[in-house]
Amino acid sequence: MTNSPAQPLRIALDAMGGDYGPPETVAGAVAAVTEARGRVAVLLVGDPEAVQPELERQAGQGLPIKLIPSEGVILDSESPMQALRAKPKASALVGVGMVKEGIADAFVTMGSTGATMAASALLLGMMEGLERPALGGPIIGYAPNTVLMELGSSIDCRPSQLVDFAALGVAFSRTYLEVAEPRVGILSVGEEESKGNRQTREAFPLFQASGLNFVGNVEGHDLGAGKADVVVCDGFVGNILLKTIEGLGDGLSKYVTERLSGHVSGEDAAAIGRDLYDLLNRTEYNGGGPLFGIKGNVVVGHGRSSAAGIARAVSTAARLCDTGLIGKLEDELNALRARTAS
Amino acid sequence: MTNSPAQPLRIALDAMGGDYGPPETVAGAVAAVTEARGRVAVLLVGDPEAVQPELERQAGQGLPIKLIPSEGVILDSESPMQALRAKPKASALVGVGMVKEGIADAFVTMGSTGATMAASALLLGMMEGLERPALGGPIIGYAPNTVLMELGSSIDCRPSQLVDFAALGVAFSRTYLEVAEPRVGILSVGEEESKGNRQTREAFPLFQASGLNFVGNVEGHDLGAGKADVVVCDGFVGNILLKTIEGLGDGLSKYVTERLSGHVSGEDAAAIGRDLYDLLNRTEYNGGGPLFGIKGNVVVGHGRSSAAGIARAVSTAARLCDTGLIGKLEDELNALRARTAS
Repeated sequence: MTNSPAQPLRIALDAMGGDYGPPETVAGAVAAVTEARGRVAVLLVGDPEAVQPELERQAGQGLPIKLIPSEGVILDSESPMQALRAKPKASALVGVGMVKEGIADAFVTMGSTGATMAASALLLGMMEGLERPALGGPIIGYAPNTVLMELGSSIDCRPSQLVDFAALGVAFSRTYLEVAEPRVGILSVGEEESKGNRQTREAFPLFQASGLNFVGNVEGHDLGAGKADVVVCDGFVGNILLKTIEGLGDGLSKYVTERLSGHVSGEDAAAIGRDLYDLLNRTEYNGGGPLFGIKGNVVVGHGRSSAAGIARAVSTAARLCDTGLIGKLEDELNALRARTAS
Repeated sequence: MTNSPAQPLRIALDAMGGDYGPPETVAGAVAAVTEARGRVAVLLVGDPEAVQPELERQAGQGLPIKLIPSEGVILDSESPMQALRAKPKASALVGVGMVKEGIADAFVTMGSTGATMAASALLLGMMEGLERPALGGPIIGYAPNTVLMELGSSIDCRPSQLVDFAALGVAFSRTYLEVAEPRVGILSVGEEESKGNRQTREAFPLFQASGLNFVGNVEGHDLGAGKADVVVCDGFVGNILLKTIEGLGDGLSKYVTERLSGHVSGEDAAAIGRDLYDLLNRTEYNGGGPLFGIKGNVVVGHGRSSAAGIARAVSTAARLCDTGLIGKLEDELNALRARTAS
């Protein structure tokens, strides 16, 4: 699916998604192609009447950005499946469809995660044995190579699903983060095998038999301490953790900015506060991460992403294409299935 | 059980518990009675040969501190029930026994939480309908009135147990934190009733029918935002959250101290880093919290507590006695049972 190195990667970007709409997504597209210096072309998917004026206002001549018309947008507040039926030409469906048709190498959106997941599962399909796409990635800025899986797609999980998440995380860690032999841990309440809830205690022997580089249970304070490269939990725990950490980024940023008043200039205080915010809002900072388990490159970002975050999401998508992550994820899952088949 | 106001409260303190042992616990006792100005007497429970020399070294004449001999200490690494049998005169058992006998108004320890729980449940008994003691308290320093229940004692919970935790948290919030009408929320992955795992979705209608001031689901970022006064989760989620936040306190403290180098003096940088640490290590800072559900005042603190933290734990125990929390917890549980009896 990936073009030859001479050709730019074609990244479809949902111009309608995100809290700030076309003014921000178009700015993100401009930033992305400018930074990529010819390596990336952006296919902006959106309502022409909303996107075209922004493009004319913001995009200089000759930038590799092209408008792909769509109709409407699916909101976070809508039921994904109903919305997909009601708005068959919505930007998320058009964008995912372009990946399916081979017109785009990847699709990037800051819009509804649920709708993008549903559209992706429907049009691109899931890797064998997976029920739904998984979300994961680094969540603490000073532990950039520690990946937490899963972050909120799979709420009630069977123990065996945790092993699947681990395999996906391992492929991502190795391929995308270039960690040689990713260590896998189960997020729990104590190091000993006997510590944990029913789910993690049942998962423990499955991890031992998985052939993955399993290092046992890890605890909350280990997340930032590099004790494992891939830390696995169900989406209920992961989503609560992710949002707690994001909220702390917000609260601590304000606290530190105020605490520094009188010690450093207001500008410096704000900058340090902002750094703290970014450190704990990695999804927003990175502009999002891949939908794991989908047979195609789809990146879902934070609704609150700025143009800079959107540009980073496009860059993430380009790197997914360059590293061939999708194939690596499938290989890892297949290898896991082969090792654990009885 | 509480003495008349003229008499000092008699707080038994485990001199053997905590990571730093008698040198630190004795210093904590000295700080506690000094700050309490006659309101508190400390009964130091420990091996005389280890505690007496520290007392002689640290405690001035006439301080209301008395040594109560015990033999041995139960370590975190031991199985609580086995250790209680093997060491019947260990400090935790002697201390809890003093509360049972009415010789002490409360017991405070920085030692093994598991052993203290087991000893307390055994000797003092559980409130009706509860299976084991619950842990809870504020966990984010800038949201000092937001109580998270439960923090790691009850790992796999039935939905109805979450309602019990809420009632305990409400009584604590009203009595100890002086919140007039504590709002109760279920920690989940979305505000809507339909969002959550099986446990929280089944708990939702129980909360609606509980007569508590239930405000619905709250999310991770709401923990620091004051959206509810009592936030409920099972001990698996709560323990992971608590330890993650504590770990962030450690990591961010180091990050900010380094980040400030060159901007402020090394002293100021360290002080600001320390503030950040304290903000996210509330159990350690507060020196611990009550064992909820035990029919007696028992405070369990962080093993890492300093003398200042230990003194705060003694002060917490004194406040538990003064506010009559135990009775209020039982009243709240009984009222809940009466409202929900069918």
